[in-house]
Amino acid sequence: MFVKDLSEVNQTKVETEGAEGAYIRWLISEETGAPNFAMREFTLEPGGYTPYHTHDWEHEVYVLAGEGVVAGEEGETLLKPGSVVFVPGGEIHNFKNSGSEPFKFLCVVPLGAK
Amino acid sequence: MFVKDLSEVNQTKVETEGAEGAYIRWLISEETGAPNFAMREFTLEPGGYTPYHTHDWEHEVYVLAGEGVVAGEEGETLLKPGSVVFVPGGEIHNFKNSGSEPFKFLCVVPLGAK
Repeated sequence: MFVKDLSEVNQTKVETEGAEGAYIRWLISEETGAPNFAMREFTLEPGGYTPYHTHDWEHEVYVLAGEGVVAGEEGETLLKPGSVVFVPGGEIHNFKNSGSEPFKFLCVVPLGAK
Repeated sequence: MFVKDLSEVNQTKVETEGAEGAYIRWLISEETGAPNFAMREFTLEPGGYTPYHTHDWEHEVYVLAGEGVVAGEEGETLLKPGSVVFVPGGEIHNFKNSGSEPFKFLCVVPLGAK
């Protein structure tokens, strides 16, 4: 078992093409012994966003703080703390900060996803 | 893709033997199309706890609100909002509310876990 505080985990800029003002913490991952899936925390600065892209794996998302939107083929949906988002594999999507404070969410993915 | 608010998800009492004052919401599960893992939210009332037990699957936990502890063979560790806990499969554990407010956390498990 391990216990740590979010703030102890190194935060890095998301350098993927199509991302802007996006930062990630890998809270639980293969490197820390996870056998099946990884838990990450994302922070998007005001105006920040993740790539509008698609991939084979799913996202399971829980919004922690701030205001944002998730965009897909059917348009945008507002998100706030307590919002739950499931993005199936193969579905185009991105997340954007639509507010004036940092927008923070957890995103769980299968191991091997980026 | 689906988006919903936590409050829209039905909350049920955890009836497992050894649980007290514990409630669960299955936010994302096999029933909602998840292929690999499920995201649940737990609420423990003041004094509430989950069973002190072990099982084959892992827990990936993120604390949302309140104060609690996770107990294992090596004792208890305090938890607060922003605490991250990884419990490997096969390791005995439970979660308890040690505060005066509801203790809330997310717990992600492989499909098939209870």
